[in-house]
Amino acid sequence: MGGPSSAEDELAAEAARAMEEARALQETAAALISRAWNEEQSLRQRASVLESGIKKIESSIRCAPNIDHGEAEKLEEELYRARCVIRDGDVASFLPSKSQGRFLKMFLGPINVRAMRKDVQLKMKEEYNNYRDRTAFLFILFPCTLIFLRSWIWDGCFPALAVQLYQAWLLFLYTSLALRENILRVNGSDIRPWWIYHHYCAMLMALISLTWEIKGQPNCSHKQEGVILFLRWAIFQGLVMILQNIYQRKRLYTRIALGKAKRMDVVSGETSGVKGQLKFLSFALFFLQISEACVGLLLLKTAVAGVVSEWQVVACGILLVVMAVGNFVNTVQTLMAKSRFKQRMRRTRNHQG
Amino acid sequence: MGGPSSAEDELAAEAARAMEEARALQETAAALISRAWNEEQSLRQRASVLESGIKKIESSIRCAPNIDHGEAEKLEEELYRARCVIRDGDVASFLPSKSQGRFLKMFLGPINVRAMRKDVQLKMKEEYNNYRDRTAFLFILFPCTLIFLRSWIWDGCFPALAVQLYQAWLLFLYTSLALRENILRVNGSDIRPWWIYHHYCAMLMALISLTWEIKGQPNCSHKQEGVILFLRWAIFQGLVMILQNIYQRKRLYTRIALGKAKRMDVVSGETSGVKGQLKFLSFALFFLQISEACVGLLLLKTAVAGVVSEWQVVACGILLVVMAVGNFVNTVQTLMAKSRFKQRMRRTRNHQG
Repeated sequence: MGGPSSAEDELAAEAARAMEEARALQETAAALISRAWNEEQSLRQRASVLESGIKKIESSIRCAPNIDHGEAEKLEEELYRARCVIRDGDVASFLPSKSQGRFLKMFLGPINVRAMRKDVQLKMKEEYNNYRDRTAFLFILFPCTLIFLRSWIWDGCFPALAVQLYQAWLLFLYTSLALRENILRVNGSDIRPWWIYHHYCAMLMALISLTWEIKGQPNCSHKQEGVILFLRWAIFQGLVMILQNIYQRKRLYTRIALGKAKRMDVVSGETSGVKGQLKFLSFALFFLQISEACVGLLLLKTAVAGVVSEWQVVACGILLVVMAVGNFVNTVQTLMAKSRFKQRMRRTRNHQG
Repeated sequence: MGGPSSAEDELAAEAARAMEEARALQETAAALISRAWNEEQSLRQRASVLESGIKKIESSIRCAPNIDHGEAEKLEEELYRARCVIRDGDVASFLPSKSQGRFLKMFLGPINVRAMRKDVQLKMKEEYNNYRDRTAFLFILFPCTLIFLRSWIWDGCFPALAVQLYQAWLLFLYTSLALRENILRVNGSDIRPWWIYHHYCAMLMALISLTWEIKGQPNCSHKQEGVILFLRWAIFQGLVMILQNIYQRKRLYTRIALGKAKRMDVVSGETSGVKGQLKFLSFALFFLQISEACVGLLLLKTAVAGVVSEWQVVACGILLVVMAVGNFVNTVQTLMAKSRFKQRMRRTRNHQG
């Protein structure tokens, strides 16, 4: 290096260069953002024009007087395919999304939680499934521990704090599940709205049960009957959750493996391998829902019989029954939709074959 | 229109055209997404190279043996400006963001909550301020109603359900504030971490107070002393929140009005108009913190004196004292940072003038 002044000059030149580069970067960034925005806007417009165009053709087909039935079905099939290309591909990011929903807005404010890229959306779904896995194990572990400690250490009586910790965890869990599912919905997941409402009910129940005074001695085993019922049911729910996760993960892997395949292909791939599992899962789900309703009715019975007189018991009982009925109706609807889809698939194949 | 077959042909042609357009759109969308991704990547790289370059020059200046003091300060000033161009401009969207934090991940999973465009980020901040405004009014309205109804209808005794509804609202409120502040942080807000920790403490307190049995008759006025203390303090907190909001909104408006102005300009604009208000606000804040500590200590005292023996009282008392101390320390640090900044500004102006 030269003398002090030459070192100074060099540093000054470097600083000036840094400033120049910063300004250049700023310009590039601003240009990139505004150009991307314009291009996205034009894509958005084209996509929505195309969507309404498809709708118009569909209604023309339905209203056409003398059109051949087979021909109409073929055309509808083609339009369905066109729609799949838009909905399942990269264009989906530019379609107007499902509205964010009040729940997300309440907690997060009106922020954008939508991922642009399809692979990011699939990763989100995968992460959600992992979360459900971890959750399912805790769902079994927590009540097992409580029931075990009750007979081993606690002398047949739950201490209030332990049960309340469990209830607080449930409240957090259902809140986070409801938030995550709402986010998945915005990102194009076709989760049925009921499963999200179901988590709202569960949140409410966890909140109510937190204010529910856990009675201690004397005669606690009688008063805490409801708690034990609930814990046993929770263990069973954890087992069903694990089953559900295994099934849904298989579906997702098929989807990822097929990449940008059309929805139709995905469904055929999906139903082939896991037929027997779906039947088993349905039975487990129905059994779970029946026992959920039973726990609810038993809670209501204890309230009516006057063993526990708090309003919380009645509220939790009603919520459990509502959730059980809603779950049952929605499971049946899902199964019916699946079988309708399979029939359609078979028909299409026969047409083509 | 012609015969039935010509209508059919026309519909078939329209469907084919729709399919073609769908495929074309898919290609355009895929190309746009991948091109945008590549351009963003290169910008990201340039930005991080520039940032580390600036750091290197700064350390060279500090280590240079014979550099003139005034000259060094001038160079540092220029580098600071370059950094402002990067941090406050559009380039900021391409810098690696602050990590999402465990709290957001726990509730939402690893999703991207960062907005690309600066105006969207400012709107987020504005929305957050609006939310705080609405909240502040509820913060006053809720406890006022409770205290009013207590002497008017409830005969000097809070019913448990009313207080628990208020506590549940607090739990929701603090959760949503903590979520929103974490999201703002990811979007480049320089909110001090303590204010977010403070909301975690408040969440915990709301949760604990939900499990806290509200004692009724007989002698409820003595047992519910803690509740009344807390409600009065909450009313005062609502008032301070409104003051804070007015002050912070003025800051934000200056920022929006100056558009892409550098950070320095913003600060000088900010401190000019609201000097007196800041002093008043500080006094109100200190008074609030002292009364928060007092409520906490009184709760601890009632627990020690044996009026109420539940662990919840002790836990809430400790949390209140911790929050008061933390708030005090952080308010002092903020005020000191502000005055340091003002000094620096003055020095810079004298240099330039």
